[in-house]
Amino acid sequence: MADSKRGSGDDARLSRAAAARFSLYLRSLEDLLRHGETKVSSSQLGSLLGVSDAQVRKDLTWLGKLGHPGIGYNIEELTKALRHALGIDRPWRACLVGVGNLARALLRYTGFREHGFEVSALFDAAPDKIGQEIDGLIIQPMESIQAVISELKIELGLITVPSSHAQAVADRLTEAGIRGILNFAPTLIRLPTGVHLVSVDLTVQFEQLAFMIQMNSD
Amino acid sequence: MADSKRGSGDDARLSRAAAARFSLYLRSLEDLLRHGETKVSSSQLGSLLGVSDAQVRKDLTWLGKLGHPGIGYNIEELTKALRHALGIDRPWRACLVGVGNLARALLRYTGFREHGFEVSALFDAAPDKIGQEIDGLIIQPMESIQAVISELKIELGLITVPSSHAQAVADRLTEAGIRGILNFAPTLIRLPTGVHLVSVDLTVQFEQLAFMIQMNSD
Repeated sequence: MADSKRGSGDDARLSRAAAARFSLYLRSLEDLLRHGETKVSSSQLGSLLGVSDAQVRKDLTWLGKLGHPGIGYNIEELTKALRHALGIDRPWRACLVGVGNLARALLRYTGFREHGFEVSALFDAAPDKIGQEIDGLIIQPMESIQAVISELKIELGLITVPSSHAQAVADRLTEAGIRGILNFAPTLIRLPTGVHLVSVDLTVQFEQLAFMIQMNSD
Repeated sequence: MADSKRGSGDDARLSRAAAARFSLYLRSLEDLLRHGETKVSSSQLGSLLGVSDAQVRKDLTWLGKLGHPGIGYNIEELTKALRHALGIDRPWRACLVGVGNLARALLRYTGFREHGFEVSALFDAAPDKIGQEIDGLIIQPMESIQAVISELKIELGLITVPSSHAQAVADRLTEAGIRGILNFAPTLIRLPTGVHLVSVDLTVQFEQLAFMIQMNSD
């Protein structure tokens, strides 16, 4: 994962790591809620994520006073606080640029909508794709990016174009006033300060796995 | 990203973070090589990744003595050392379980093969999918997992099944002797010690982006 935030010191990076754990706590809590649970202890949560309960308590302290000694955390209360901390207690509108297989897979992935992320517009450069409808959205030409983002108040952009076009698309989204980009193209892109980037480079994920296996074999 | 490695202390986590940067250095170096460059300085690399040149030098020290004062790094030499450190200077065979849109997108993603990761077998539970051919691979039934993994000496598994089946598939892959799993199902899975996990939960990526934007707005 790459973070475009310039000049971020150790504190910011620490927060980012904690935020990543917040997302995973949230996933665990949602699972527990689905199974009818109402309370959870720090050691239960830690064991679900494979981190120490000391780490869990330290992370959750950041959310304010929530734990009840001897009882644990109220799951609903904790879920709400985590969603607030992550900034997902309100909806986020996104657009997607580059409608291929990956885009179709992402659009069918119900997890986004369930978590408040709504893809509200699709763009592509290929003339034969423009006008096609997918999940109720019409694919629009690249020239419409600026107008549509502004009209629909879209804040996030998903880039699923080939690597060679990724930077140009990122520039276009940035000019249109987007605040954050989720980049799936396996290339590094540069953004101006204030526009945030999360890169999902699948090769990197594979390499991490190879690294972990190799490290363990030594 | 979740790491299933149990009981990993700060040192192991530090290595994991450095390994993630190694992947990104590698991406930058490959870009530079494509543009005909042969040498690079730590400050150039740092600026490409948005990290300090002190961090770059610290990370690369881990690879042994490679930098030449006043000249910088030889890109080819550095690329080779990074690939060795990441464990990707040899091929890795993978299988994929659950052949939907995401799987098709992943199979068409050339980055894997270019980096030595080869998907050598496909499995699915749906009778109508079994026997279909995708990119020269025949989709096989779940019952064949054990035999095929053993015969083809497959080490990695990609899970692209719905969340509700992910743990069962992970268990099956583990029993078949897989060493690492790349999980795309948006759910937490548990693996025994020694089997490594990298989770690509796209909701988490989105949440990280929301978090970064929100943090910057406060």
